[in-house]
Amino acid sequence: MKTYPSLENIASPADVRRMSIAELGELAAEMRQAICEQVSVSGGHLAPNLGVVELTLALHHVFDFSHDRLLFDVGHQCYPHKLVTGRFASLGKLRQRDGMSGFPEPRESEYDLFSVGHAGTAVSTAIGMARGDMLRGEGDRRVVALVGDSSIVNGLSMEGLNNAGTLGRQLLVVLNDNGMSIGLPQGALSHYFDKVRVDHRFIDLKHRAREILEGRTAGKLVEEVYHRLGDTTKAALAHTHLFEHFGLVCIGPIDGHDLGELVHMLEEVSRIDRPVLLHVKTQKGRGFDFTAENPTAFHSPKPFRVSGGNAEMISGPRSFTSAYADALIDMMEDDERVVAVTAGMPDGTGLDKVIPRFPERAFDVGIAESHAVDMCAGMAKTGLRPFATIYSTFLQRAVDQIFQEVALQGLPVRFCLDRAGLVGGDGAVHHGFLDVALLRGFPKMTLMAACDEPTLRAALAFMRELDSGPSALRYPREEVPAPLEDETPPFELGRANLLADGGDLAVLAYGFPVHHALAARAELAEEGYEVAVYDARFAKPVDLALLRGLAEARTPILTVEDHHRDGGFGTAVLEALNDEGLETSAVHRLGLPDRWIYQGSRTDQQHEAGIDSAGIADEIRRVLGTRTARVVG
Amino acid sequence: MKTYPSLENIASPADVRRMSIAELGELAAEMRQAICEQVSVSGGHLAPNLGVVELTLALHHVFDFSHDRLLFDVGHQCYPHKLVTGRFASLGKLRQRDGMSGFPEPRESEYDLFSVGHAGTAVSTAIGMARGDMLRGEGDRRVVALVGDSSIVNGLSMEGLNNAGTLGRQLLVVLNDNGMSIGLPQGALSHYFDKVRVDHRFIDLKHRAREILEGRTAGKLVEEVYHRLGDTTKAALAHTHLFEHFGLVCIGPIDGHDLGELVHMLEEVSRIDRPVLLHVKTQKGRGFDFTAENPTAFHSPKPFRVSGGNAEMISGPRSFTSAYADALIDMMEDDERVVAVTAGMPDGTGLDKVIPRFPERAFDVGIAESHAVDMCAGMAKTGLRPFATIYSTFLQRAVDQIFQEVALQGLPVRFCLDRAGLVGGDGAVHHGFLDVALLRGFPKMTLMAACDEPTLRAALAFMRELDSGPSALRYPREEVPAPLEDETPPFELGRANLLADGGDLAVLAYGFPVHHALAARAELAEEGYEVAVYDARFAKPVDLALLRGLAEARTPILTVEDHHRDGGFGTAVLEALNDEGLETSAVHRLGLPDRWIYQGSRTDQQHEAGIDSAGIADEIRRVLGTRTARVVG
Repeated sequence: MKTYPSLENIASPADVRRMSIAELGELAAEMRQAICEQVSVSGGHLAPNLGVVELTLALHHVFDFSHDRLLFDVGHQCYPHKLVTGRFASLGKLRQRDGMSGFPEPRESEYDLFSVGHAGTAVSTAIGMARGDMLRGEGDRRVVALVGDSSIVNGLSMEGLNNAGTLGRQLLVVLNDNGMSIGLPQGALSHYFDKVRVDHRFIDLKHRAREILEGRTAGKLVEEVYHRLGDTTKAALAHTHLFEHFGLVCIGPIDGHDLGELVHMLEEVSRIDRPVLLHVKTQKGRGFDFTAENPTAFHSPKPFRVSGGNAEMISGPRSFTSAYADALIDMMEDDERVVAVTAGMPDGTGLDKVIPRFPERAFDVGIAESHAVDMCAGMAKTGLRPFATIYSTFLQRAVDQIFQEVALQGLPVRFCLDRAGLVGGDGAVHHGFLDVALLRGFPKMTLMAACDEPTLRAALAFMRELDSGPSALRYPREEVPAPLEDETPPFELGRANLLADGGDLAVLAYGFPVHHALAARAELAEEGYEVAVYDARFAKPVDLALLRGLAEARTPILTVEDHHRDGGFGTAVLEALNDEGLETSAVHRLGLPDRWIYQGSRTDQQHEAGIDSAGIADEIRRVLGTRTARVVG
Repeated sequence: MKTYPSLENIASPADVRRMSIAELGELAAEMRQAICEQVSVSGGHLAPNLGVVELTLALHHVFDFSHDRLLFDVGHQCYPHKLVTGRFASLGKLRQRDGMSGFPEPRESEYDLFSVGHAGTAVSTAIGMARGDMLRGEGDRRVVALVGDSSIVNGLSMEGLNNAGTLGRQLLVVLNDNGMSIGLPQGALSHYFDKVRVDHRFIDLKHRAREILEGRTAGKLVEEVYHRLGDTTKAALAHTHLFEHFGLVCIGPIDGHDLGELVHMLEEVSRIDRPVLLHVKTQKGRGFDFTAENPTAFHSPKPFRVSGGNAEMISGPRSFTSAYADALIDMMEDDERVVAVTAGMPDGTGLDKVIPRFPERAFDVGIAESHAVDMCAGMAKTGLRPFATIYSTFLQRAVDQIFQEVALQGLPVRFCLDRAGLVGGDGAVHHGFLDVALLRGFPKMTLMAACDEPTLRAALAFMRELDSGPSALRYPREEVPAPLEDETPPFELGRANLLADGGDLAVLAYGFPVHHALAARAELAEEGYEVAVYDARFAKPVDLALLRGLAEARTPILTVEDHHRDGGFGTAVLEALNDEGLETSAVHRLGLPDRWIYQGSRTDQQHEAGIDSAGIADEIRRVLGTRTARVVG
């Protein structure tokens, strides 16, 4: 256990503002050590946080974020910020229930303005706060958005930057350019960023500019002064930076690990009363050889062992993600029409295994889900079979594209939704809790869920042949369990699969909760209840023949899903029975409640939502107990 | 009635390819006349189509879109394209049921690849088709995306352009820059476009470049040649154009009404085997003084009268949009915390009346719904009361922002959803058929609908005070009917409003269909049925006390909504009763079917969906008839 004398003395950012550059350097070293030590134990985002230690300290040194506004983008690089805003003590419970969230979280601290985990939001929310503060007579609050290089090219960031150019007041966008972001950078702009190198001559030119500036007093004259600078000077200041076209003053790139330079530059740009983009080059994973040399592997590692400067990744059990990647590779070998796309998540979706095998047919388009879906629509239009592999939560970024460019055209784009349902440590910003509700209203959409590796493969095989319209398959952030059946029957449109019989009640579980249902069944069997368990497989269309049969037999039905209980699979069951004029008072629905579920283990979260075996068993006891009581009464 | 000798001779684009520049000019004049004449009778998009007549002809002259690919963006500028692809005869039924859609429509013609009406999609779908054709061994198909200047700065376009830079093959993005798009251009980039003027010297430089090019044969050497051009030449070619940074060869701007120049340039760029952006300046409303001078008013006019070179707009009845604008102005006068935002639709949302009155507090951010929502989130965070005014269909562009930046934060952003439900002539690309389903899963969301001007005002007054979380109000593309009540009771959270009593069945209508329900009630009264009609007002939360009372009295319930019948208000009623353990077989749901409804009048569309008075009356007869039969049996 290391000690952190400097870090322990930071009660609030006020302490950071008082420190010298040298003291900040010592603090930075301790922060890196503390973060690495914790992540090695609990897992979490490592390389992104190591890259922004100096930048975060410099921001807190120059600005006062108890008054000024700091907006994070994506937010997984917030650990250094949390360490200096009173949360060092809770680092030990990183990403745990009632511990420190891995993302900015206003419930923890007033220094966190928005809980974020999705990309591209910071510029737009910053503009909103800048306009809001101005209208409320608090325009002296300075606004800073900290955005990574992968986020800045997200469509939402671009829309924000375009609007920022019309904002007649201070707004600082700090571009944290680590040339990496989550995976390798994608898109033409990443090459552009790559060409723009840190130029120390820039500082001298900037000093000249400052001499001019210091001759003036009123802040609103800065823009005029800026225009008075010679074109050569301005070119050097801005390197004819891309974002100049958006109407921003562009400065940099500067070295994101030189605390002196950072503080100096931030002090200077903090006085400019028009939107400024400060381009900062940082090194992802800075501080440890093993993270700096392999920042992708250490982007968000599981627990690992460090010894003698090296780190050994502890390899985990096989995940649904791995199973998906292998199945996809097999399909691509069989069928040259199959193509696959990820939006900036090659590791998280398993496509990092697929892209090297099929570089012509597997694409990473960067954090651009909307584009990813439309590109798939275009490929489907030419007769290909695209598999759009997107986290359930990020699919929310492409609802309109799925509506118009996919569903309205009847194009067979296949959506593979990783991390559907509760996600554990990432918490509320990343649960895939709404995909069924969002997709169910599109005509000709087929919706499926997988519960083990054989059903995943069977569903994919079914989707691959489904050229008549769009389809989506959801699977959880989980290790794949042992196969449920020796031989898994193939998927047939709208057909559930009976796994275990029983006449008292039928559980229709959609996807992974089928395992909890089977455990509950076993528990209840000892109490004399005979419960059937079905793997529902389809949420659209639901198994109407099965539902009719159960309703006619007056068998109570319990639907279970790792999805919002309103608008999902259980609701589809209700609607289908209602459309048939059948009774639904014997239908009971378990799913995620209509409130937020915060970070913790998936086990705890499923328990909190009542969709684990205990929750299912309790609900069945309640239903059957009531029923017996009624019959007896 | 004019005659169109040239236009009548165009059987297919092959005829356009054979024509001389002079003949194309004559054709262009006829096309303008035909379009203007038709729109003056039926309404439709006028100024956008008048602006692209020459550009469309030049594209069809140079490319062969029976083989090559033409992707429209937004698509309301497709009339000239339709006239030369075999649809002149159906122009007379523009935007009518079974007539010519006002947007590209693959059901009409193989020359229309995607049915589109939303912005920013063309570059991405074009990239998908370019990649798909290449993989399928049909890389000789050239791909063209035609994009307007407001669309090009939409986030999705930006994501597409960034990805285009990585595409190693031909792709032509034609930027149709009319400096106007739908309303006045918004955002800093619009000023950038404005500064870039048509430069005829450019053609000479281009000729020099062509001399170099003509010395080479293989297409793949073009890029190399391009790099061999002197920097000065390249700067003149590209004007250091913004999109150069995206890795595109940028050429222009050129004059979009000079057929000779257009054909010449298109022929030249069609041979470049890397992504090219051709910047074309056009004049929106070109050809008639009244449209060119007032392109915003003639963007999408209702029928108008032309006499002596002037046009007289026939003023229509008061719309929900106008009623909203007036109510918003009143609120903004009362409450300085109220701010309002539109995403590029000032006319369509009524904000064109609001912005001049409150230029500091009402914003048009351009076609950037995601940014609009996040900017509202930021403003709400500072304590303001933002009203995000967005068409229901375009809200699909911001689902993820509503999730994370609004709902997860519990921020009181008010969503005012114009054109909710069926939209008439715009057809399937613009129906607001899913907003309730998309928003219902967000905790603390309040959902409301208005059916006349007093309920619109009452709902807005309620929303204005609702600072505890987000809320949304939907209203249709309709004229406001006479107020339903002499005195409209204020909105109370989750309380429906009884409009007419009756013991046989209760209709719970969500929003505008309440008028149809009342008409059906009157009709059925003559047949001896006594039907109650409630204005449901809230879809979240639903009126549980009312539902309990009806269920206990065993009164059949009919829900009616101008929204997908799955996942909407009727479903919320089912779920609520089910949660209470109450019977639902006496609940019947009317809403939009799970298939697409194409262009036509709103009257016809509502009839097709069975949510008009006839559909409601029939359903009530069916329900009560069955019930009577049962009782009798």
